[in-house]
Amino acid sequence: MGKDVRESDADVLSGAVGVGLIGFGTIGAGVAKVLRDNASVIEQRLGFPLRLARIADLDLETDRGVDVSGIVFDRDTEGLIADPAVEIVIELIGGYDVARRFMLAAIDAGKHVVTANKALLALHGAEIFAAADAKGVDVAFEASVGGGIPILRSLREGLAANRIESLHGIMNGTTNYVLTEMEKTAEDFDVVLKRAQELGYAEADPTFDVDGIDAAHKLALLVGMAFGAKLTYKEIPTEGIRGLTPVDFEAAEEFGYRFKLLGIAKSRSEGGEERIEARVQPTLIPSDSLLAKVDGAMNAIAVHGNAVGPTLFYGAGAGELPTASAVVADLMEIAREIRRGRAGRVAPLSYAPGELREKPLVPLGELEGRYFLNFTAADEPNVLAHITGALGEHGVSIESVLQKRSGEERGSVPVIVLTHPAREAHVRAALEAIDALEDVTAPTRLVRVEEEL
Amino acid sequence: MGKDVRESDADVLSGAVGVGLIGFGTIGAGVAKVLRDNASVIEQRLGFPLRLARIADLDLETDRGVDVSGIVFDRDTEGLIADPAVEIVIELIGGYDVARRFMLAAIDAGKHVVTANKALLALHGAEIFAAADAKGVDVAFEASVGGGIPILRSLREGLAANRIESLHGIMNGTTNYVLTEMEKTAEDFDVVLKRAQELGYAEADPTFDVDGIDAAHKLALLVGMAFGAKLTYKEIPTEGIRGLTPVDFEAAEEFGYRFKLLGIAKSRSEGGEERIEARVQPTLIPSDSLLAKVDGAMNAIAVHGNAVGPTLFYGAGAGELPTASAVVADLMEIAREIRRGRAGRVAPLSYAPGELREKPLVPLGELEGRYFLNFTAADEPNVLAHITGALGEHGVSIESVLQKRSGEERGSVPVIVLTHPAREAHVRAALEAIDALEDVTAPTRLVRVEEEL
Repeated sequence: MGKDVRESDADVLSGAVGVGLIGFGTIGAGVAKVLRDNASVIEQRLGFPLRLARIADLDLETDRGVDVSGIVFDRDTEGLIADPAVEIVIELIGGYDVARRFMLAAIDAGKHVVTANKALLALHGAEIFAAADAKGVDVAFEASVGGGIPILRSLREGLAANRIESLHGIMNGTTNYVLTEMEKTAEDFDVVLKRAQELGYAEADPTFDVDGIDAAHKLALLVGMAFGAKLTYKEIPTEGIRGLTPVDFEAAEEFGYRFKLLGIAKSRSEGGEERIEARVQPTLIPSDSLLAKVDGAMNAIAVHGNAVGPTLFYGAGAGELPTASAVVADLMEIAREIRRGRAGRVAPLSYAPGELREKPLVPLGELEGRYFLNFTAADEPNVLAHITGALGEHGVSIESVLQKRSGEERGSVPVIVLTHPAREAHVRAALEAIDALEDVTAPTRLVRVEEEL
Repeated sequence: MGKDVRESDADVLSGAVGVGLIGFGTIGAGVAKVLRDNASVIEQRLGFPLRLARIADLDLETDRGVDVSGIVFDRDTEGLIADPAVEIVIELIGGYDVARRFMLAAIDAGKHVVTANKALLALHGAEIFAAADAKGVDVAFEASVGGGIPILRSLREGLAANRIESLHGIMNGTTNYVLTEMEKTAEDFDVVLKRAQELGYAEADPTFDVDGIDAAHKLALLVGMAFGAKLTYKEIPTEGIRGLTPVDFEAAEEFGYRFKLLGIAKSRSEGGEERIEARVQPTLIPSDSLLAKVDGAMNAIAVHGNAVGPTLFYGAGAGELPTASAVVADLMEIAREIRRGRAGRVAPLSYAPGELREKPLVPLGELEGRYFLNFTAADEPNVLAHITGALGEHGVSIESVLQKRSGEERGSVPVIVLTHPAREAHVRAALEAIDALEDVTAPTRLVRVEEEL
């Protein structure tokens, strides 16, 4: 090892910036591949090379399909962090506790950190960014949102002149794959999920993805970057896609919409106070919108700025090489700033995480829009009259109704209603009354419609 | 004016970065509006304000709908460039000669320059960037390609870890509007163009737009950023949309494609030599591709990187505020670097324009793909046999044929052929033979098909 450190020292003198990788799984292997395969283009763009000096992982045996010769590869994470040949530490082990400890240790050692760990930042971001601020090092995390899509950079730099008005993002490839398949095949959620697991599009435990938690992690980071608002993912109302059934997709198509699991955030200023609307939910969006065309495991984030108007950023939201593309972009930015001799935070943030401010959230009851309501009702003559009557009593008027006579459960039928624009509090009050009706046999499913895309 | 300069000096001391604007037309007014309306968010993100200190324009009378109080507004361009209160000069007068002179004067005075002038950079970029290099100032030009879409920054930073393999861009809103309308209404080009002019989507002299020159300017800049290749727009094979007729759109739809005017660039490495394929042309792309869904005056650039895979960047490619969004983003980046005390070029380029290299172009004859061929043929029994026979003799096989019996010119009918993948040299040789046939009454129109989108 002593020999390798000496080689690394030579590199520092000759201009290479040394990098250490903690976590040699799928993304870690991708980073090693990109650094190796694209070494010449990286050096051309930077003016000097990046050198992967060390890798630390518990598993030293598995073949990752990438040549690690010349790289110190062991289990010694502390040694990696302390190694003077390592100027930037890449954290790619994921999870909360161990990753947090390694990241704080790297910061404490004065190392810049690049990570893809949205879960950790969405929960412990405040602590980590404060530590980085105190040490004058950077924590870059482009890979944590939208995989290879440079969405954080675009908010931070390209759209920096804008007051961001709204974000609508397909930010989880697993759920987008499942929704696309359900729409295409008219199969049940469980059937499609099982196939997605077999094909490697979904994890054995799909909770984080299908319940919207992963998207909420990412939305929390986007909200900070776009609105300067301090928000942890736990504050974001989050709903997954488990409840959707083939009849929902059939009705949506008839109404001219498609289902997407969206992370949505908007800034609302009224009377001088800015409030943030943030939620993760299955959403109906117009079939002819660009976001509706994003199929399979791809991601896209639509951003509306007050100067630029509507924009959209599309690409692979996960995967070995796309995620590595974002990690290495962060490495390049930090490395360039290191060579420029800048000591402080190197990646200027549109809003530095340390400067995020608490901003009140808009309660869901205040939302206004069309609502897609799927009632499970007894197959009785008057049920539609009861439902529409209760909606009317709460001031919710109906745009379209679809009543299916082919409910699978004997004696119960789905009744699907698309409302005219209404206030969510009124819709919810109506649903409370309707779900208490004798001929409504299961809780009503409410899906919000977003038109302005 | 003396008073204003003293105020500006005070600003410099208090941290504002002073900006001077040459050219107070549509985009210039947009820049003034964004700097005013978004001043608070700009200051929050930068940590200090941007101050529009001076505006120079020949027209001092027209009301641009923006408050210019507190800003020196006169015809004195030289005074603006020399004013110590102006650290960054924005050139927005457009055109070649005068703009070039002002830009070089600003660089010579040690001022950083921000411009939206793609025409100038595509022609005189080498001279201008060399002058900027020599003076250690930056020339930023995000607004010159894709309007408000941060595409140059994304190539330079977000996708910097990638070897860029291809670009396919809808980069001219006027032509995309005309194509979208022609498809929707089945009207002739001239009719739709006239309406576009009345609605303000096309200029009185539409040559730059409809003949593809504007797109070629932008493609030349993108090719530099993506591939490090030195290319002026005059070297790019460029074809506009004037030749397309309603029957082309009808046939394209039947074949499952849509027409888009694309700027296309690809990097091809064979035997250690990199060659660049670059062209602007009406192109058929699969109807279900995301790029095919980009309608009206919007722009989008699809970028394929070897790590990130397919990406797409969408937004308004022109217009007062979207273009201003990009100009002000450049101002903010330069201003931040000024305040950091960095003397040299501030906006690091993936490939510095001064370091672009000559790379050979791939001749069109070497292209391979499907071809859409519109033959104008005499309405004779054997004409289809003659055409298909000539194609076959040159090794070009046919995938689909559409023969219309309703040609407007009496006695001539359009015969539209979609070929199987073929080499363009063979297709062109076949067309030469076919156009010499007695029963082919007008030159054949050739449109390339791009599948991999």
